[in-house]
Amino acid sequence: MPVADARGVSRWTDAGYKDGMEVDPGTLSPREAYRFMTACLVPRPIAWVSTLDAEGRANLAPFSYFGGLSSDPPTVMVSVGRRKGVRKDTARNLLATGDAVIHLPSRALAEAMVATSADVPSDVDEFDLARLGKTPAACVRPWRIVGAPIALEARVVAHHEVGRSVNDVFFLEVVRFHVDDAILVDGVPDPARLDAVGRLGGTTYCRTTDLFGIERPGA
Amino acid sequence: MPVADARGVSRWTDAGYKDGMEVDPGTLSPREAYRFMTACLVPRPIAWVSTLDAEGRANLAPFSYFGGLSSDPPTVMVSVGRRKGVRKDTARNLLATGDAVIHLPSRALAEAMVATSADVPSDVDEFDLARLGKTPAACVRPWRIVGAPIALEARVVAHHEVGRSVNDVFFLEVVRFHVDDAILVDGVPDPARLDAVGRLGGTTYCRTTDLFGIERPGA
Repeated sequence: MPVADARGVSRWTDAGYKDGMEVDPGTLSPREAYRFMTACLVPRPIAWVSTLDAEGRANLAPFSYFGGLSSDPPTVMVSVGRRKGVRKDTARNLLATGDAVIHLPSRALAEAMVATSADVPSDVDEFDLARLGKTPAACVRPWRIVGAPIALEARVVAHHEVGRSVNDVFFLEVVRFHVDDAILVDGVPDPARLDAVGRLGGTTYCRTTDLFGIERPGA
Repeated sequence: MPVADARGVSRWTDAGYKDGMEVDPGTLSPREAYRFMTACLVPRPIAWVSTLDAEGRANLAPFSYFGGLSSDPPTVMVSVGRRKGVRKDTARNLLATGDAVIHLPSRALAEAMVATSADVPSDVDEFDLARLGKTPAACVRPWRIVGAPIALEARVVAHHEVGRSVNDVFFLEVVRFHVDDAILVDGVPDPARLDAVGRLGGTTYCRTTDLFGIERPGA
């Protein structure tokens, strides 16, 4: 039935609608808020980010607060949280050098990807830790992972600090796409061949195997 | 074998590694760049965004350039492209009012979600177009979708313009979570029950049904 609320907005309400749980994030601890966010924002693509520190030492780590910002030019966002208030190597390296190679992991590389999320000292090379091969990038200094089906060479174009715990949010322009020939169909990556991995809550991931299509209206 | 390149960085190269296609985005048209971006950044969560214009008229539209920025406080990013250089209703409404309800669509709502992406005049109410029920939000003015398993009430905290085609990038703080009781396990949304939808390239979507777990190292 249509009703006018106190704000003067006419509302149609479904009398049979059963409301679910309503949570004020102000009542959650930071840890609980993280659990809620990562359980709700799904499925998340994974930015598996290769950087170098100022001395040229390699770092590799996965992040799922990651998304597209623009296609012209191709630009992405990666948000890097802090660990006990301290910037992670990836954020420090991006601020120092501005360069990254962002890989999208396939199912075959998922265990190696998670292995690189270990809390290890800055001088540990996560490529070695996860037994991943290195191959040069075309336009930026950080290493590219051998066997990663998609890699985006990218350069930082903006940095923002967000939130009380202070995430370092980087906007990066993609300067080169690398795509494995095996997943190309008509010159574009094919989702069925990519076998990408999405992040859900906790330690749960999804494959992109259960696909369906819906045509856009008017298309 | 380890080799030192011209930049003085010692590289280990896999002699057997077959490189794939390498694409300079500067050689792509904006349309081709969009195809590449949306084929590579997968799977993408979908922000199904409800807003009101300054006159209180409802708007609803899906966006997949979307991601988490921070958990403390919960903050997300939504990037809204322009259509033939003109701001879409969602961006105009967010700039005018600052309020949104961001829904994460389930498989059952996927066709309705795509229906709300139609290119229709500003005065068309996409809730009516897709036959979706409206229910009030707790803290913000825009409508919440009846039956959406997850809804985040959110307020704009920052706005950035990104790229040559100029995407409007909004940072929004989540002020309320709504979660359907049917998908809660131990008080947190369960990915298997949510039956979320991810966006891939073109008109392809994925379900989050093919799940696997990997424990974090040291956890």
